[in-house]
Amino acid sequence: MEKPQLHTILTPKLLDLYDAENSIVVIIDVFRATSTIATALYNGAKEIYPVADVQECILLGKNLNAITAGERDGKVIEGLQFGNSPTEYSQDVIENKILVITTTNGTKMLQMALDQNADSIITGSFPNLGAVCEYLISQNKNVLLGCSGWKDRFNLEDVLFAGAVVSKVSEHFTIHCDSSLMAKELYELHQKDIKQFIRKTTHWHRLEAYGLEKDLEYCVTENAANVLPLYNKEKRALLIHR
Amino acid sequence: MEKPQLHTILTPKLLDLYDAENSIVVIIDVFRATSTIATALYNGAKEIYPVADVQECILLGKNLNAITAGERDGKVIEGLQFGNSPTEYSQDVIENKILVITTTNGTKMLQMALDQNADSIITGSFPNLGAVCEYLISQNKNVLLGCSGWKDRFNLEDVLFAGAVVSKVSEHFTIHCDSSLMAKELYELHQKDIKQFIRKTTHWHRLEAYGLEKDLEYCVTENAANVLPLYNKEKRALLIHR
Repeated sequence: MEKPQLHTILTPKLLDLYDAENSIVVIIDVFRATSTIATALYNGAKEIYPVADVQECILLGKNLNAITAGERDGKVIEGLQFGNSPTEYSQDVIENKILVITTTNGTKMLQMALDQNADSIITGSFPNLGAVCEYLISQNKNVLLGCSGWKDRFNLEDVLFAGAVVSKVSEHFTIHCDSSLMAKELYELHQKDIKQFIRKTTHWHRLEAYGLEKDLEYCVTENAANVLPLYNKEKRALLIHR
Repeated sequence: MEKPQLHTILTPKLLDLYDAENSIVVIIDVFRATSTIATALYNGAKEIYPVADVQECILLGKNLNAITAGERDGKVIEGLQFGNSPTEYSQDVIENKILVITTTNGTKMLQMALDQNADSIITGSFPNLGAVCEYLISQNKNVLLGCSGWKDRFNLEDVLFAGAVVSKVSEHFTIHCDSSLMAKELYELHQKDIKQFIRKTTHWHRLEAYGLEKDLEYCVTENAANVLPLYNKEKRALLIHR
């Protein structure tokens, strides 16, 4: 029996070159949307609604009696309650609560996957690496690892995570994909010094200015919040898949 | 004085995210268009006209009394005289001749650079790595390393060449670009075993079926045809820049 295929999408702009309709799409936004999503669910959030803009975030938050979250330039957006840092979502803050979160790059990739009628959508980052790999192996479907990047540009930390996945699941997939090969090489080269390596990325330099070093180190810590956020198309929300 | 900026464009689809108008764009199509272009010029071709389609190639070839070249699926296209292999363009074949060549991926990147009004356009591959680096250092302008890829998808061999350039010119440029950082890492990791490494690429597997191993090994041989092809916008042709 032929193994399912796996491809890595280096930026949202390249998603339409691939067959999302017959694939699980993994939304990857390591700094920090998908790290925060895993953490909030791990700490007991009931549902997470990712939305594209601030007004929608405020409105939906009111309707659902939810916590609202979003940041611009390292600060909580006016009218919202929390920021995008995973450290904000401890158990006592988020347990049994609903979260509505607005992010730029991650939400864009998610919306594109929806527009292209993806078979199913999950989110991944280092804190839930193990859960993502386990799920992908169990489903026996094609996979697109969707790196959210930064304003459509390529982002190292996202491709590093894609490489971590490829490195751990490759024997279960057919991989004719240079992006995946490169991602795997890069991850295997840097998995031992990943906290040093991320200091070289452009995103580190943007966020470091806001004093977020600890945040970013957490975002590359494997299995610190090891749950599987699965997107529920009817609810338009991410819930833990058990 | 601030150094000029350098970015790496991983596929043609990403070129419009960058400022081509104020940059030298380096067209990179290692397997095999830009390797062949360097080789033909090195062996004495007067001018090379890259064109997008076969009919244009035949017509222009007739008008210019030129050699015409193009391949599909590893065979010379009907109506044209030569293929896309650098080995076909020895001195006795090409000296003082004009070449009209049709390629898919490389020509697309070139056309996009023209559409975006690039400051200037050169072509690069391992056989002319040294000449490309020397030129870029001498010009003191922003640089976009444009990987042609394969049908808009990312291609390892092109980014390896971009990495070779970054590795050799980085001290002369400001580089806030994750793609360039990754390219450099990958090249420095594999520069010693590059002929083995390229055997893993998707493109190798496509072309190997046509018996082109020797061709592909030549295409990653540094400085085997060390000239600088500069695109002349009036002529619409590539000529050696001296």
